[in-house]
Amino acid sequence: VAVSRVRKQIDEALYSFVDGQRPLLEAVSGELSPLLGALDSLLSGGKRLRPAFCYWGWRGSGGEDIPEFFTAAASLELLQAGALIHDDVMDSSDTRRGQPAAHRRFAALHTESGWRGAAEAFGSGGAILLGDVCLTWCDEMFQGSGLPDDVLRRGRPIFDRMRTEVICGQYLDLLGQARGRRPDANAMVEAALRIVRYKSAKYTVERPLQLGAALAGAGPEALDALSAYGLPLGAAFQLRDDVLGVFGDPDETGKPAGDDLREGKRTVLVALTLQRADPGQADIVESLLCDPALDAAGVELLRGIIVDTGALDACEMMISRYAADASKALASVGLTAEAREALAELTVAATARTV
Amino acid sequence: VAVSRVRKQIDEALYSFVDGQRPLLEAVSGELSPLLGALDSLLSGGKRLRPAFCYWGWRGSGGEDIPEFFTAAASLELLQAGALIHDDVMDSSDTRRGQPAAHRRFAALHTESGWRGAAEAFGSGGAILLGDVCLTWCDEMFQGSGLPDDVLRRGRPIFDRMRTEVICGQYLDLLGQARGRRPDANAMVEAALRIVRYKSAKYTVERPLQLGAALAGAGPEALDALSAYGLPLGAAFQLRDDVLGVFGDPDETGKPAGDDLREGKRTVLVALTLQRADPGQADIVESLLCDPALDAAGVELLRGIIVDTGALDACEMMISRYAADASKALASVGLTAEAREALAELTVAATARTV
Repeated sequence: VAVSRVRKQIDEALYSFVDGQRPLLEAVSGELSPLLGALDSLLSGGKRLRPAFCYWGWRGSGGEDIPEFFTAAASLELLQAGALIHDDVMDSSDTRRGQPAAHRRFAALHTESGWRGAAEAFGSGGAILLGDVCLTWCDEMFQGSGLPDDVLRRGRPIFDRMRTEVICGQYLDLLGQARGRRPDANAMVEAALRIVRYKSAKYTVERPLQLGAALAGAGPEALDALSAYGLPLGAAFQLRDDVLGVFGDPDETGKPAGDDLREGKRTVLVALTLQRADPGQADIVESLLCDPALDAAGVELLRGIIVDTGALDACEMMISRYAADASKALASVGLTAEAREALAELTVAATARTV
Repeated sequence: VAVSRVRKQIDEALYSFVDGQRPLLEAVSGELSPLLGALDSLLSGGKRLRPAFCYWGWRGSGGEDIPEFFTAAASLELLQAGALIHDDVMDSSDTRRGQPAAHRRFAALHTESGWRGAAEAFGSGGAILLGDVCLTWCDEMFQGSGLPDDVLRRGRPIFDRMRTEVICGQYLDLLGQARGRRPDANAMVEAALRIVRYKSAKYTVERPLQLGAALAGAGPEALDALSAYGLPLGAAFQLRDDVLGVFGDPDETGKPAGDDLREGKRTVLVALTLQRADPGQADIVESLLCDPALDAAGVELLRGIIVDTGALDACEMMISRYAADASKALASVGLTAEAREALAELTVAATARTV
């Protein structure tokens, strides 16, 4: 109950901020409406996980339920929106949250309008700029949340570090895909885990939790205890996402089956597969990964190898171990009982075998 | 003398901030050094115009020469860096400030390293992420400048609006290029002028000046007077840039001759040309603009039409009129005599016929 109530308040804060920006864009030009249309579409989906973790860090450290805090926490959804929009350009993803990716929307607008030049280039350009809008609005929303200056100042170092970390994590991800298979399979698993750490574990769980707690006045020791919970939970969450990206139901994930494989994502699951594969299997994995025309049969073949090598079992074991570590650490965090209960609920939701 | 002293202090603040971020990136991964390398290369060039206008707004409104202010003002260079990096991806520009554009650097790294997939896609991805880093660092640097909270709060609405406006201006620019020639030539000139207003006049001059003045405590009337100076100066500055983009010396502009023509930029100069062209000339302009393989002979042909139609003269007249409007308005701004003198110097420098 508490979790869905928080979600509602986060949504209200988010939509209220975006609505407040409409007049500015309309004053510049009526031709900017596709930017807002694409943003509205993206924001209509999403689990609001980061604001939720931020809320429980705050609430569990003695913060009150005030609208200013919900505004500050909801700003994380704009960071996430910007990251997803740019990610989809880089990965050439077609869909996001069950809808066309932003760059595909802009490309479709170009085609429908019969404009000059390549629709794809216009699509990427529009999406790059929409992502930029989201990144600057994230910060405008956070800093303009109405929280007192001394409160904001407490959260600021974490807010800043989180943003740099997630972008760095994305660069490492891009690099991992470009590098592909490396001779040392263990190093490949480690590299994939480092991407998980920065792109997901810190960004999705640890930093939002710490941000909320820091805003509420938590000290360094309390923040460290939250890391001990947030990092394994965030890793478990990402590994679950990786498994769903290969084996998940498209109706639930909002992405076509096997999309992660088609995009050649160098996930931990893929690294574990290559670590365990015989040379023949490894060659098949390498040749099929990153094939934009990968069909259902190819996806089935890859899934078979991921299962047969034992990589799926190994990944599920890692998820269980991380989730157990997180649950254990949760008992030691200095948060209220109410917050610990809500986080236990989020832990289950974030690592469950369905979306 | 004052102008070059300011530039030195802006540079020091900028490099000091970027150097302060190195350890964080190094702690994440040694593989992030190409991001910093590309940023260092970009920041080694540039005229620091926006921080300079911000400084004179501040100084002329009674602000003191304190390091905290130089840090806040220098943050505008990171916004500019992010905008240029993303712009170059969208325009597929090869060079920036006489060096390879960021996305070309990342693409070259991909090729040299023999990585998988398309070097160009890696290049764009790296540049998108580096631009994102710059956008978030701009705000981190501004908010973390050390200026007191009440001072920052005075500047914040302008800082926020400026960022949204420049991104919106870039979207309108992208749209203008996609639309190409429109039946109503006057509407085309107006559309080009609106892009100049948001992408340049406000962003380069008006908002930085107002930001400095607002931080120093200037009220609404003083800010309006700065608009009356900043908007025409910013427009003159951009029109000069457009002329140099077609007729300028590559050694001075840092871009190959005719690069703007090759990229199909829908500048005011181009709109004025199409407005005055006969149907035959207009067809030539439309067919050559946006031709990525446009050679020296094509550039010469286009230059000839721009001159023959009288568009170049018309553009020079607009520049003179805007510059005169700015100079006239400068006499009425409520800034100190020292600031007005420095701004008069910047007015000349920003609109002169050479870079």
